[in-house]
Amino acid sequence: MPELRKDPIIDRWVIIATERGKRPHDFVIEPDVVKGGFCPFDQGNEHTTPPELFALRDSGTAPNTPGWHLRVVNNKFPALVMRPEDLLNRQGEGMFDKMNGIGTHEVIIEHPDHQALLTTITIEEFMLVLGAYQERMLTLAQDPRYQYVLIFKNWGRAAGASLEHTHSQLIGLPIVPELVQEEIQGSKLYYKWKERCVFCDMVRQEMQQQVRVVLENQEFVALCPFAPRSPFEVWILPKTHHSSYMDLSDASRRHLAEIFSATLKRLEKSLLSPDGFRAPYNFILHTAPLRDPAMPHYHWHFEIMPKLTLMAGFEWGSGFFINPTPPEDAAQYLREVKL
Amino acid sequence: MPELRKDPIIDRWVIIATERGKRPHDFVIEPDVVKGGFCPFDQGNEHTTPPELFALRDSGTAPNTPGWHLRVVNNKFPALVMRPEDLLNRQGEGMFDKMNGIGTHEVIIEHPDHQALLTTITIEEFMLVLGAYQERMLTLAQDPRYQYVLIFKNWGRAAGASLEHTHSQLIGLPIVPELVQEEIQGSKLYYKWKERCVFCDMVRQEMQQQVRVVLENQEFVALCPFAPRSPFEVWILPKTHHSSYMDLSDASRRHLAEIFSATLKRLEKSLLSPDGFRAPYNFILHTAPLRDPAMPHYHWHFEIMPKLTLMAGFEWGSGFFINPTPPEDAAQYLREVKL
Repeated sequence: MPELRKDPIIDRWVIIATERGKRPHDFVIEPDVVKGGFCPFDQGNEHTTPPELFALRDSGTAPNTPGWHLRVVNNKFPALVMRPEDLLNRQGEGMFDKMNGIGTHEVIIEHPDHQALLTTITIEEFMLVLGAYQERMLTLAQDPRYQYVLIFKNWGRAAGASLEHTHSQLIGLPIVPELVQEEIQGSKLYYKWKERCVFCDMVRQEMQQQVRVVLENQEFVALCPFAPRSPFEVWILPKTHHSSYMDLSDASRRHLAEIFSATLKRLEKSLLSPDGFRAPYNFILHTAPLRDPAMPHYHWHFEIMPKLTLMAGFEWGSGFFINPTPPEDAAQYLREVKL
Repeated sequence: MPELRKDPIIDRWVIIATERGKRPHDFVIEPDVVKGGFCPFDQGNEHTTPPELFALRDSGTAPNTPGWHLRVVNNKFPALVMRPEDLLNRQGEGMFDKMNGIGTHEVIIEHPDHQALLTTITIEEFMLVLGAYQERMLTLAQDPRYQYVLIFKNWGRAAGASLEHTHSQLIGLPIVPELVQEEIQGSKLYYKWKERCVFCDMVRQEMQQQVRVVLENQEFVALCPFAPRSPFEVWILPKTHHSSYMDLSDASRRHLAEIFSATLKRLEKSLLSPDGFRAPYNFILHTAPLRDPAMPHYHWHFEIMPKLTLMAGFEWGSGFFINPTPPEDAAQYLREVKL
């Protein structure tokens, strides 16, 4: 079982793989994701993944056989594991603090076609992906051991993907992670002072200034945040206040799929290298913890971060980021790029 | 002038290069550091760097000419700049907070030989590097506008280095960076509770357990921390309490050079790939802010982080790190590797 350990000085947790630790020579980092060859996520190879936890399939097709549009399975190499009998167990080791690494690590296989990308699938297909995120969160919320579900996508080797086939990931956690706690605390402080949601204020100011806005539709806005860690970082936020992604309505899901798809297409086109190489990226869903009631101060959103710069000594030592592209310039490029 | 901007929700600052922002096609990331060709850090090319701020030279040689053993110059592409008249200027922009990006960004060219590495130079040469760090900190401490000096090294392309010639970097800041503040606050909290320094306690427990210790000598210990972010992460700490690196004595500098050199050699050998490729790494000096008196709760140290894993969606979204190598295993590999 993996172990969660806390740094003794600051509030930083790490997940340590204690079972089969990687030895020095296991760290050959591949320059690119594995292309060609056998793909466990392809249609017809369902038996090579762990059994499906959720799927959208043609009627009459059996689980773990072809005929699906989207599948969710356990990660074959999970960062955390959760057996029915597992409970969170906090312990000390002398002066140090740790807990057992219980949790779930799932893969959302977004499309059966090996060549598909979030930038090539239809809006209806994109809606299925967004719906699957919601579906899994709602299911995991039934298990009182989960406090938080983190949904993210790594696309491209430099962004941490090891498989080419389009997929996102979900990690269910027995605690609320540090960064989410900081966001909740920060927005609560702002709310105490102003009695307004900081994200709602941000959306209002950005929509009024129209300097960092990339796209908007009836319900959502895509913008380059004022203090982005990464060049061409884009956040997608609902225009009205909603703290949890779990409450997304069917109608909103379509608007979200439209702006999300359009934003990724603009990012892909803007950052396409002269030799046709697509820029790697991560996106992360930021949403309220599973067990918290609707929060007046927190506001769910997606953060999309192209991987164009490296985390180096200065960032590791300071917690600061150096961003060579002002978000005002990035937003303009993204608005003006010809699709 | 660059700009420091604060995220409106959490305590996270970014440095935005507002002068000549990088456009989409400026982000071609080279797979490796530039090898061969012209090197501005080589002996004989002194005129191609900004003028030297500090140097150790043979007697009788003029600044910015050959005959040096170590040079410190301004970074040609600085993240921050400081002119004599600049003062820290905090401002709002609607709901957002920013300040002008004043500071200094220097390069410590550690050795005149283009092929030299910290793992190949002599202990005496290593002592010059450690002494130069101290020298620059003491000089910058005279300018009341500086609050903190961050010293770090990026080695190898994946760790953020763009030039092959052995060098480290220094960034002088008008504020104490977030991560250092967190460390100081965390250690202060521990001190309030226990009236002991958390780092001293850690050194004591590790030396007693001898599980995560890699090396030790009379004055220093090199150990894999209990909750490392990165596989094979090693910290080097003085065994007795010292909060600021600026106070390092000449005798201690020798002991530090010895353990630092030996640790880097063990890391290099352990992580050498089958085709002779050295693993990239960062190291960062963690020390007390310039203007703070000796702190009973803070303890300077170096953190060495080999770059073997990638920061991906989960890390960006949670602030957690996933480490596939338990530090107990890493320490054993590093102790047992044959040099």
